[in-house]
Amino acid sequence: MINGERTIQRPLRWGMVGGGRTGQVGYKHRTGALRDGTYQLVAGAFDLDAERGRDFGTALGVEGDRCYATYQDLIAGETAREDGVDVVSVATPNFTHFEITKALLNAGIHVICEKPLFFTVAECEEVKALAKEKGLIVGVTYGYTGHPLVRQMAAMVAKGMLGEIRIVDLAYTHGFNAGDDTNAGEAVKWRTNPETAGPTFVLGDIGTHLYYLSEIVLGDVRVEKLLCDRTAFIPSRAPLEDHATVLMHYSNGARGRLWVSSVDAGNMGSQRYRFVGSKASLVWSDSHPDQLLYQVQGEPERILHHGMPYLEDESLACDRMGALHTEGLGDSWSNIYLWIAQAIDARMRGDDAFLANHHYPGIDAGLEGVRWLENCVRSADQGAAWVDFE
Amino acid sequence: MINGERTIQRPLRWGMVGGGRTGQVGYKHRTGALRDGTYQLVAGAFDLDAERGRDFGTALGVEGDRCYATYQDLIAGETAREDGVDVVSVATPNFTHFEITKALLNAGIHVICEKPLFFTVAECEEVKALAKEKGLIVGVTYGYTGHPLVRQMAAMVAKGMLGEIRIVDLAYTHGFNAGDDTNAGEAVKWRTNPETAGPTFVLGDIGTHLYYLSEIVLGDVRVEKLLCDRTAFIPSRAPLEDHATVLMHYSNGARGRLWVSSVDAGNMGSQRYRFVGSKASLVWSDSHPDQLLYQVQGEPERILHHGMPYLEDESLACDRMGALHTEGLGDSWSNIYLWIAQAIDARMRGDDAFLANHHYPGIDAGLEGVRWLENCVRSADQGAAWVDFE
Amino acid sequence: MINGERTIQRPLRWGMVGGGRTGQVGYKHRTGALRDGTYQLVAGAFDLDAERGRDFGTALGVEGDRCYATYQDLIAGETAREDGVDVVSVATPNFTHFEITKALLNAGIHVICEKPLFFTVAECEEVKALAKEKGLIVGVTYGYTGHPLVRQMAAMVAKGMLGEIRIVDLAYTHGFNAGDDTNAGEAVKWRTNPETAGPTFVLGDIGTHLYYLSEIVLGDVRVEKLLCDRTAFIPSRAPLEDHATVLMHYSNGARGRLWVSSVDAGNMGSQRYRFVGSKASLVWSDSHPDQLLYQVQGEPERILHHGMPYLEDESLACDRMGALHTEGLGDSWSNIYLWIAQAIDARMRGDDAFLANHHYPGIDAGLEGVRWLENCVRSADQGAAWVDFE
Amino acid sequence: MINGERTIQRPLRWGMVGGGRTGQVGYKHRTGALRDGTYQLVAGAFDLDAERGRDFGTALGVEGDRCYATYQDLIAGETAREDGVDVVSVATPNFTHFEITKALLNAGIHVICEKPLFFTVAECEEVKALAKEKGLIVGVTYGYTGHPLVRQMAAMVAKGMLGEIRIVDLAYTHGFNAGDDTNAGEAVKWRTNPETAGPTFVLGDIGTHLYYLSEIVLGDVRVEKLLCDRTAFIPSRAPLEDHATVLMHYSNGARGRLWVSSVDAGNMGSQRYRFVGSKASLVWSDSHPDQLLYQVQGEPERILHHGMPYLEDESLACDRMGALHTEGLGDSWSNIYLWIAQAIDARMRGDDAFLANHHYPGIDAGLEGVRWLENCVRSADQGAAWVDFE
Repeated sequence: MINGERTIQRPLRWGMVGGGRTGQVGYKHRTGALRDGTYQLVAGAFDLDAERGRDFGTALGVEGDRCYATYQDLIAGETAREDGVDVVSVATPNFTHFEITKALLNAGIHVICEKPLFFTVAECEEVKALAKEKGLIVGVTYGYTGHPLVRQMAAMVAKGMLGEIRIVDLAYTHGFNAGDDTNAGEAVKWRTNPETAGPTFVLGDIGTHLYYLSEIVLGDVRVEKLLCDRTAFIPSRAPLEDHATVLMHYSNGARGRLWVSSVDAGNMGSQRYRFVGSKASLVWSDSHPDQLLYQVQGEPERILHHGMPYLEDESLACDRMGALHTEGLGDSWSNIYLWIAQAIDARMRGDDAFLANHHYPGIDAGLEGVRWLENCVRSADQGAAWVDFE
Repeated sequence: MINGERTIQRPLRWGMVGGGRTGQVGYKHRTGALRDGTYQLVAGAFDLDAERGRDFGTALGVEGDRCYATYQDLIAGETAREDGVDVVSVATPNFTHFEITKALLNAGIHVICEKPLFFTVAECEEVKALAKEKGLIVGVTYGYTGHPLVRQMAAMVAKGMLGEIRIVDLAYTHGFNAGDDTNAGEAVKWRTNPETAGPTFVLGDIGTHLYYLSEIVLGDVRVEKLLCDRTAFIPSRAPLEDHATVLMHYSNGARGRLWVSSVDAGNMGSQRYRFVGSKASLVWSDSHPDQLLYQVQGEPERILHHGMPYLEDESLACDRMGALHTEGLGDSWSNIYLWIAQAIDARMRGDDAFLANHHYPGIDAGLEGVRWLENCVRSADQGAAWVDFE
Repeated sequence: MINGERTIQRPLRWGMVGGGRTGQVGYKHRTGALRDGTYQLVAGAFDLDAERGRDFGTALGVEGDRCYATYQDLIAGETAREDGVDVVSVATPNFTHFEITKALLNAGIHVICEKPLFFTVAECEEVKALAKEKGLIVGVTYGYTGHPLVRQMAAMVAKGMLGEIRIVDLAYTHGFNAGDDTNAGEAVKWRTNPETAGPTFVLGDIGTHLYYLSEIVLGDVRVEKLLCDRTAFIPSRAPLEDHATVLMHYSNGARGRLWVSSVDAGNMGSQRYRFVGSKASLVWSDSHPDQLLYQVQGEPERILHHGMPYLEDESLACDRMGALHTEGLGDSWSNIYLWIAQAIDARMRGDDAFLANHHYPGIDAGLEGVRWLENCVRSADQGAAWVDFE
Repeated sequence: MINGERTIQRPLRWGMVGGGRTGQVGYKHRTGALRDGTYQLVAGAFDLDAERGRDFGTALGVEGDRCYATYQDLIAGETAREDGVDVVSVATPNFTHFEITKALLNAGIHVICEKPLFFTVAECEEVKALAKEKGLIVGVTYGYTGHPLVRQMAAMVAKGMLGEIRIVDLAYTHGFNAGDDTNAGEAVKWRTNPETAGPTFVLGDIGTHLYYLSEIVLGDVRVEKLLCDRTAFIPSRAPLEDHATVLMHYSNGARGRLWVSSVDAGNMGSQRYRFVGSKASLVWSDSHPDQLLYQVQGEPERILHHGMPYLEDESLACDRMGALHTEGLGDSWSNIYLWIAQAIDARMRGDDAFLANHHYPGIDAGLEGVRWLENCVRSADQGAAWVDFE
């Protein structure tokens, strides 16, 4: 159980690029990073509007001269200091992730980046090589995978409690873009423009969450073939999609289906996961994340609650609130940020043994997400045809 | 609201073929047919074992000499009587439906048949022509479509309360066949053998329920293209499937996905329907059939309950229990049986005007189900390829 | 599992007093009685308006000359026939139950009566003695206690699966009388008038359901002391109550609380039961009757589904639809009517051994309900004071 | 919407008494206080074991010389510093709250104290007077009242959206003490001993949460009379209770019932609230805190979700995660801690106008909780008799 005690040598000096006052995602980073004294927010280039960014940064407690106008300024200013940032989070639109991440790594700064990581697998490979060369960590904020019951699912599948995996059913849909984009805000506009969003809209924006979480739970079971059928119900979004279905065939013969949509009018259910084995199934949703449904065929259904002693050690180790008390999205982000901090700390200490067994969403998690997106787009571009997973 | 008063000229004299003591489905027919005095069970060929069938029939209150050894005997015996049966229900394995139905129609007897109706569209067309020629009704027992909230969904969609339909999400899965068939009962054995089950297992057995109910709700929106990916996780069931996913493109641009499985270990959720329009969605499941979720984007979710005055007239007209009181599967079957009886009665009276506007699952409902199955199999046989709906 | 086969010697000839076209409750009796051929509806005095009653009765299939103007006529007419009714159901306002029941018993006719049975325990005792003297059965329609999962709860408690019972939490509330009675229908008017309803409104109308079901589940654990706090939020209903809370102390030290209300605005949850033992609890509601929550302290919660093989024999024996298929209120009423028919049949056969062990809601169930009401009123009349249960 | 920007002049220098490594509650305080830079944890007397406390404090990032052995040392050390603590949280067993709070106030330090605040109303009044005299704030950690949907309920009731309040139904029960205390931990031991817990166990430990939240929602509707029936199913806990029911009559004629228990085996539902008005009801539970059920009689039930634009301003103002993203207990605590910080800040600035309209759980919230406990005990001691609320 996590109680706020430090598990790393010293707090990390942390900066942000993006995540300013008008965005939705910045607070998720900050509330995830700051609650345990693992990170100290000391610098930022929070906003394209330099003045607003400085005003915002100082309201967050950052000193005015460490509120920078651009990420280039941030790198220049921080690398010139003795006490410059150790790590920077990138919470900007997708099309800027690649260049900002490379610049930070080249300046010797660890990076935590929003998903989808970059536009292409090639870019991911390049950054992976660069990070390795520089001895730096790249973390990716797949926020909900920090929930203790996600760890529980992975542990149960690994122990064979479901039998052999047969069916994977994944969905993340909402209806907040059911109307057209006439009056849409900035966050929608850049997400529906290929130049700023990359080759996908909802597949990258929300589908990568489904895919990464399923990777964690499925272990060695991997996608071998897939088919992606995508469409834009609001025509101005084409060629990007606001709705997509992906069918997957896995290495062990399992079958998967995945649904992402932002035109699923009225749906407040958010992410839904169902893992079916030859003996039993697991069902979890982030709309009621503190309970896990475990269904053994022929037995009463079981509801497992977070924080209860009957859970696996991996799950209890990252519980924060204890049973009966809701763990929220912020608690999951806290775990993700903590795990990345532990990776950075181990890298700083040169502790490769720790890193070899440490679970956190790193560069490979980001890379595999982009690889999956590339395969989806390739299938969709062929008229929703089956393609081998490459 | 239905209160048991007769809506037809006289009770129908009713017989059954199949539905004997050892089967699961016979009681659903009887409890559906008998509660309101619309049907009187007067004859039957209940069982392949003639003695057991007679014993069972008399325990149901049928006179011994009207408990027949075979359906042929039943036809011979009943047509020889002044007071012979008006209508016979066919609750036998799939492969017998066609010949029994034809024989009954040829003998001038109305038919109520289990789904999937027959093996091929050609057979359905033949029977449709025969029924028309003979002036007889063929009803098909899509049991759950009798629920008042199914009528409510259809009425709401027809009134445009969802906007334009965009997404259709259908699932009927359970895990009762998650294990292999070593110790399976007769009902599983004939369902997994192509000679007795026809070209499909779960697609026909449970998928046709999803398809017919969606037809009722969707109205003019029709499938134009589909892709069916099916598999048998228990190899002995191949070439039939115990798991299938179907993707559908509709005439108005809507997209659909459908999932059927009998290896979805532990799933007790039964049938689940989600209809998404440009403005709002409807969600209904037969595992909690008395409530309907209506989600207008941007507004609080609404739960509608059966029997409440705010529902549409079509729904209230077929309510039996009233609000706060659970309507069960038997109540839905009662409505189906009642609606078929009203069709038979109108046909007897020669009331074509009534028939033209009367809602019930008739020969076309059965035929369209078989057509959909043929398209699914054609796609699956081409390696889960897209096929135009024919 | 029930499949419609007869379990009694011959169908019972059945009549109704009340339950006419304008009432809500008549169809519940008929759909419960008629689906299995156990009862045949052959006579009735359905309505205070004789003509409307005859019209209605013939629409139900009763011969015109057996549609009587009054219950006295019914008794006279039926006792004059060779094939007169065996049993009559009384579905009239409360104040008439006593005289009609006595008249029927005196005429040698078995009775099935609505709850609350009569106004006083003394009346119940008188009828109990009369029924015994005449060798007749009096059944009481506590409809929901026919559900297979109610039997399951009783069996689990009896086997000690909850440990020692400690807490009983009962509620049956709705909001259909949240407004005043200016435009209320007949059913509300007679229920809120002491002359026609007796000494209580919601306590008798819905509270007796809670109390009887709890008696079945609790077995030997009996109320020793109680306190009833009742009020009428709509003043015109006083001295009767539209809201009441009852606290109970049980013989084994357990504590109970019960809530009934018809002004619980918007509540669609209907009956809710929670039985807490020293080790585990059971939760059941008739708004989702097919699942039973079983909570063992320190273990995952378990959801049990009706019709599943892991249930107790008592539960499976009265299942009608099978797992995955909803059992409705009508199915529960069917079981109640069946059990009463079996009691009548046993009495006709003189089979006292059968009767000694046969579960059905009989005269004692009705009597205990009225006794509980008397104690509630006595407490309420003393200013919601504790009273010993007498 | 809260995004981490400072709303006070400067971060508060914060200390803790109690809340050490072995306790459950300390982390809730820290995660609530620290995520937004509103508080800086600079001092503590975390543990009765001074060495363990220092080890723990330094692991939290507190400097070693500000990790004190006792609260007296903390006061002495911190008041001697220029940069001593502004505010201290008291997270120790109940019996120490009074003396520690007084000592802190006398030293000029603001206080945040766990509930139940003190043992008697007289103690509360004394501290209230002292705080007023010193010009200091006393906050009380009723953690869940920080949830945005609690604010929503209060706003809806205040606007009359429920009509006149009629019924209040409150429950907070769990089963973690269903077994006896043979192997119980420290937290259970001091809570079941009157010398350390005060005059109640579950009434004070969890019942005060129910009472305070209901006060917030009910506004001017106040308890006038109550009856408390309490018992200890585990005899060693007597005279304290592990189960209690409280009936309440309110100033406007409304009726309330409240249930607290720690022997409600298997219950994972935590806090449940139902507020019933003449037109509609609200239902909220902290086990699924992000949705609020709004039931208008005669209309479909509505589910309101946190963070949605249709909510009241008061609710949206304190939302942190946004719609679709779970707010957890930690987020609620964050709001409570923020509101208390704003009160302290206003007091420091001498801004009485702000304070007059500022919502936060202060000394009166704590005092009213203790007053309610005194009335409960008085009733229970008279044999669960009705008492006027004093």
